[in-house]
Amino acid sequence: MYRVGVDLGGTNIAVGIIDEECRMIDQISVPTLAKRPEDAVIKDICKTVGDVLQRQRISACECSSIGVGAPGCCDSEKGIVFRSYSLSWNHVPLGERMQKYFPIPVKVDNDANCAALAEALAGAGRGYKNTVLVTLGTGIGTGIVLDGKIYSGLKGNGTEFGHTMIDVNGELCSCGRRGCWDAYASATALIVNAKKAAANRPESALNLVDEMNGKAVFDIAGQGDVTAIAVVREYCYYLAVGISNIINVFGPDIIIVGGGISRQGDKILDPVRRYVRENCFDKREEAMPHITTAHMGNDAGIIGAALL
Amino acid sequence: MYRVGVDLGGTNIAVGIIDEECRMIDQISVPTLAKRPEDAVIKDICKTVGDVLQRQRISACECSSIGVGAPGCCDSEKGIVFRSYSLSWNHVPLGERMQKYFPIPVKVDNDANCAALAEALAGAGRGYKNTVLVTLGTGIGTGIVLDGKIYSGLKGNGTEFGHTMIDVNGELCSCGRRGCWDAYASATALIVNAKKAAANRPESALNLVDEMNGKAVFDIAGQGDVTAIAVVREYCYYLAVGISNIINVFGPDIIIVGGGISRQGDKILDPVRRYVRENCFDKREEAMPHITTAHMGNDAGIIGAALL
Repeated sequence: MYRVGVDLGGTNIAVGIIDEECRMIDQISVPTLAKRPEDAVIKDICKTVGDVLQRQRISACECSSIGVGAPGCCDSEKGIVFRSYSLSWNHVPLGERMQKYFPIPVKVDNDANCAALAEALAGAGRGYKNTVLVTLGTGIGTGIVLDGKIYSGLKGNGTEFGHTMIDVNGELCSCGRRGCWDAYASATALIVNAKKAAANRPESALNLVDEMNGKAVFDIAGQGDVTAIAVVREYCYYLAVGISNIINVFGPDIIIVGGGISRQGDKILDPVRRYVRENCFDKREEAMPHITTAHMGNDAGIIGAALL
Repeated sequence: MYRVGVDLGGTNIAVGIIDEECRMIDQISVPTLAKRPEDAVIKDICKTVGDVLQRQRISACECSSIGVGAPGCCDSEKGIVFRSYSLSWNHVPLGERMQKYFPIPVKVDNDANCAALAEALAGAGRGYKNTVLVTLGTGIGTGIVLDGKIYSGLKGNGTEFGHTMIDVNGELCSCGRRGCWDAYASATALIVNAKKAAANRPESALNLVDEMNGKAVFDIAGQGDVTAIAVVREYCYYLAVGISNIINVFGPDIIIVGGGISRQGDKILDPVRRYVRENCFDKREEAMPHITTAHMGNDAGIIGAALL
C-alpha cells in the first residue's frame, strides 16, 4: 500500500506519495495563500492530493491513509487544528472536512511531530525505540516518538522542551517566561548573541557579515575569530544543558538534532556529547543515548505526515 | 485474580496481596537486613510472599503476577536491578532468581515508578490518561505513567525530572551538576533554605525549632512569621517553575504531588496553580492539567508493584 502525506505550511502545501519503503514517489507543491478562508485552503489540499494520485495513476484505495502535518497545536485524535498562528486557524476540523472527499482515513498532527516521526521511523532513528528530535530553528522544536508513536500529551500541547526554564533569572523568551531553553539554544538565540558580541568587539570578523546567520557564526569561528569562538562555545554549552535535561527526563535511545545549524555536524555535537557524558544523571555507558544529526531533508514533513 | 506486590526497601521488605479492586487484603513486613548477601535477601522476599499467601490460603496460581518495586535503576524488561545504592546491589537478576520459586510471572521496576503506577491506576490519577507523580522528599522523584503504563526510558534511567537544570548558575545539586530542580524544590532544599533564612534573621520563630522539617516551616509561616513566609513563597515558586516545565514537556492530564510536604495541600498547590496558569506555554483552559495531592499513603509501593 502507498501512503499520502501533506506538509501544510504557511507558505506552501506540499503533497507527496510514499511507498512501503518510505521512498517518495512523487510530490506536488502549491502556494497555501494562507490569508484565504480556511475552506479554500482545504479544497486546494484535497485537489492537490487528487492531482498527485492521478499523475501517478494511483487510486486512493491503493493508499492506506492520508496524513496532514499542520503548523500549530492539533488534536490528533479528533483531527482538529485548534490553533495555528501561521495559518490564522482556530479550531478547524481539518480531518473531518477532508474525510468527505476520500474513502481512506485522514489523520492530522502537528508538523514538528511529523518531522520527528519521519526521522524516527525512516531517518536517523530507524531501529531505535524512543527518539527525540530537537530542531534548532527560529525556536527550538522538540518531537518525541515512543515505540514508533508520536507522544503529544494532553490535547496536542505537549513536548515543548524548548520552553523549559533553564535559567530562572534569565533572558526573556518569546513565550513570555524568563530563561527558557529556546532563548539560549535556538538559531535565533545564536544570531542575537553573535550580534551582541560583535557590537562589543569591533575587531571581530563577525562585524563583516552583511546578514548574520548561524552558518556565518560557525564559519568565522572556524577562521579563528576569538569572539565568534566564544559565541559558538557558549551556544554549544546551552544546547548541551538542554539536551542533558532531555536525557535525564526521557532517557531516549537516540537524540536527533535537526534544523539548519545541525549541518555543522560534529562541530556542535562533539561538545554536546562531552558535556552530556560528564553531566548526565546516569553516566553509565549503556545509558548514553546516541546523539546525531537529522538524515532527512525537506521531505521529512511529507514523509512523517504520510506515516501518521 | 489476585496480585502480589513487594515493596523492597533498604530497611524493610513489605509484601502484600491486592484484589481486583486494588484493595490490600493482607500484608507482611520483615527487615531487609540489606548488608547480607543478595541471595539471602531474595530468599526472604520469596519466603515472605509464600507466608502472606499461606496466611490468606491463596495459592500462587490464583494470582496473576508478582511485582517487585526496588530502590534503584531497574531494567524492567529483563527484571534486573542494575544499580541500587540502598541495597548495594549491582546488576542483580532479581526477576530471574525469584521466578524459580513461583509458577506466575515475576516483574521488577523502580520503586518510584511503582508509586506512580499506583497513584495513576488506583489513586488520584484514576480515570486520567497521562499522569506525572512528583514526590517531594530527600530529593524530587518523578514517575510518568502514559496510557496506564510506566514510562522508564532507555534501560530504566529515565524520568529524573528532578535533575533538569532550572538555574544555569545555581546551587550545587547532589548529582554534581549546578542548578537542578532537586536543589530548589525537594524537602531537603526547603529545610536547607529555612535554616539559612533563620540564621540571617535571629528574630524569626524558625530559630525556635529543635529539628527543622518541612511541616515546621509551613506551621511557622502559618503563624505569620515573615521569614518563614518568604521561605515558603520562594519554595512554592521553584516548585511551580519545575511543574510548569513538566507541563510544557509532557502535557499530562494530571500532576500528582506526593511526599510529606504534599500534606500541606492547597497551601502549596494554590500558588503552583496560579503560576502554572500564568506561565505555561499553552494557556488554554482545556490544556491545563489537574494538579492535586497524592491519595495513597504508604501502601502505594506495594499496590504499584502488584500492578506492574
